[in-house]
Amino acid sequence: MNELVVHTSTHSYNIYIDEQIRYQISKFIANDYSSIFIISDDQVAPLYLDDIMTGIETERIFHTVIPSGEASKNIDQYYRLQTIAMEKKLDRRSLIIALGGGVVGDLAGFVAATFMRGIDYIQVPTTILAHDSSVGGKVAINHELGKNMIGNFYPPKAVIYDVNTLKTLPDHEIRSGYAELIKEAFIANAEFLQQLLPLTLATISNDQLKDHLFQGVKIKADIVEKDEKELNIRKFLNFGHTLAHALEAELGYGKITHGEAVAIGMLFALKISEHKYNKSLYYDQLLNWLQGNNYPLSLFHTGIDQLINAMKLDKKAQYQQIQMVLLSSIGKPVVVNLTDDELHSYLQSFKKELSAP
Amino acid sequence: MNELVVHTSTHSYNIYIDEQIRYQISKFIANDYSSIFIISDDQVAPLYLDDIMTGIETERIFHTVIPSGEASKNIDQYYRLQTIAMEKKLDRRSLIIALGGGVVGDLAGFVAATFMRGIDYIQVPTTILAHDSSVGGKVAINHELGKNMIGNFYPPKAVIYDVNTLKTLPDHEIRSGYAELIKEAFIANAEFLQQLLPLTLATISNDQLKDHLFQGVKIKADIVEKDEKELNIRKFLNFGHTLAHALEAELGYGKITHGEAVAIGMLFALKISEHKYNKSLYYDQLLNWLQGNNYPLSLFHTGIDQLINAMKLDKKAQYQQIQMVLLSSIGKPVVVNLTDDELHSYLQSFKKELSAP
Repeated sequence: MNELVVHTSTHSYNIYIDEQIRYQISKFIANDYSSIFIISDDQVAPLYLDDIMTGIETERIFHTVIPSGEASKNIDQYYRLQTIAMEKKLDRRSLIIALGGGVVGDLAGFVAATFMRGIDYIQVPTTILAHDSSVGGKVAINHELGKNMIGNFYPPKAVIYDVNTLKTLPDHEIRSGYAELIKEAFIANAEFLQQLLPLTLATISNDQLKDHLFQGVKIKADIVEKDEKELNIRKFLNFGHTLAHALEAELGYGKITHGEAVAIGMLFALKISEHKYNKSLYYDQLLNWLQGNNYPLSLFHTGIDQLINAMKLDKKAQYQQIQMVLLSSIGKPVVVNLTDDELHSYLQSFKKELSAP
Repeated sequence: MNELVVHTSTHSYNIYIDEQIRYQISKFIANDYSSIFIISDDQVAPLYLDDIMTGIETERIFHTVIPSGEASKNIDQYYRLQTIAMEKKLDRRSLIIALGGGVVGDLAGFVAATFMRGIDYIQVPTTILAHDSSVGGKVAINHELGKNMIGNFYPPKAVIYDVNTLKTLPDHEIRSGYAELIKEAFIANAEFLQQLLPLTLATISNDQLKDHLFQGVKIKADIVEKDEKELNIRKFLNFGHTLAHALEAELGYGKITHGEAVAIGMLFALKISEHKYNKSLYYDQLLNWLQGNNYPLSLFHTGIDQLINAMKLDKKAQYQQIQMVLLSSIGKPVVVNLTDDELHSYLQSFKKELSAP
């Protein structure tokens, strides 16, 4: 089993990555919880909820299901879950289990963070993408005016990653998850990047997947340990995200997966980086890889002014100025302020390039 | 000026208590905030909002007003404030100022705690009662099924207490605030208790008020410093609160002030304490004092079974068992589990005593 420890300002927690461990949740958590409340979605629950329940010996165990998809990360769903938690008489010694992808993890995590001012929760991610969101304690819901605008920094008590639950993922979900893995490689580990760039996503083995997840999670964990509240280096994890968030918002959530949007955002950040630092930073290689693995680059057709406005709503923006993470070399991210004019011109030529035959 | 420092797990902050300092907010806060958002209520804003604005030199300053009263601590009001924060383009370098009593402080504090996963806020309390809620970082909104059920531990960056804003308080608000001061004396400082018990609330001077607030805040700050997340001794601050919360919920919020409910709750806790530890713990003296200062003891007319059920929703309850803070002697609180039967019998005789002529 791959195992990692993450140290936070309040506690340390373990990340377990292995096959079939979803049946053995009890092994990985304290056994004195007064009750357990599993939150899942309507795609994941039919597949894995029973497996999880089997492995838990508590009498007071409850569960609920949310509609799958980003739209569930809203204030009404959040309040509904709080209501159930109260109706089922959860108390401060209760545990919430988030069984699903990033939407479930973010939403259930924010419920845990705020129910009675905070109770324990664990993440049981069922997507590759969720290797990113399940580690590091960022929990949130969306607001109509911006993604993840309402939330907390609130680390889980454990992350239990059963790679067998990833086998049934549709292609776009695999692309979405691997975009974040590539991102981690770009900002921190050139060797990992060399492993990933020749990869054909359709042919990954379970062992490769375990290894890639482990390497990705390790990069993420190392960074959030040093900067839990995103005051400095944690911002590097947003490589590709400034444009991605704007793109997701402008296209409408659900039109493009998060990771696919990040892929386009990374490509854009590499373009600016190559221009600013006047060196090759694998723009061409990444473009080839994304095309070879069928990333939906043609979805980049949004108006440029709208994108810039949306980028200003980004949580990293300060004093109305847009910040982006660029690379000064592979594994060396930097945070850079960009003017509207600069961005406008970069976006224009990037758009032209992507739409070229 | 009375000044106190509170050390938290994330930062230290100052509490300033003095006359007329509401005009000089800028003196007490960092000057590099990108924007400032003042949240107040419709009773406080007409009196003091302009005074606060005068003392701040930021260009990007916004404000909004909520209806005064506990009913505003709800999810809709919370979301509305988040919306304004986004519309006004607050960012992570923005500051929220909570100008008002506990309702404004709890609500605005929870908005600050969760907007973009947490921005700075300061408390400018305008009630005596808020000396308690403004210190210690407990922020929350209510759920229909329980008070303060959704929230965070999230300390402010400063508490700025202008005692001149307390002069216009109605009598029931003075009673409410002094009940929490008496509570602090009971659990931590016998000498302070001796100062308070002979007091007639109608005749307090400004100097007395400053001194009492300072002593109360000091007790509170000492405790929350040692136990920010209410894992052990912070529970002592809930002396009187188990019954109080149940009483407020059963009567309907707004029918009795929080402090007045706490006064009845303390009296009840003293009654049990005297019985359990077989000694005088000032039950009679507190009863006299409450009667002499017109506390609404006759409001204790709720059904006993309903009260017990409501007490089980208390956040300190574990495994469905009710916990109460009792005193083993003055200044020596203890947390005790009580069975439903015990509580039933205590509540019955307490009710009889209060309704005796």
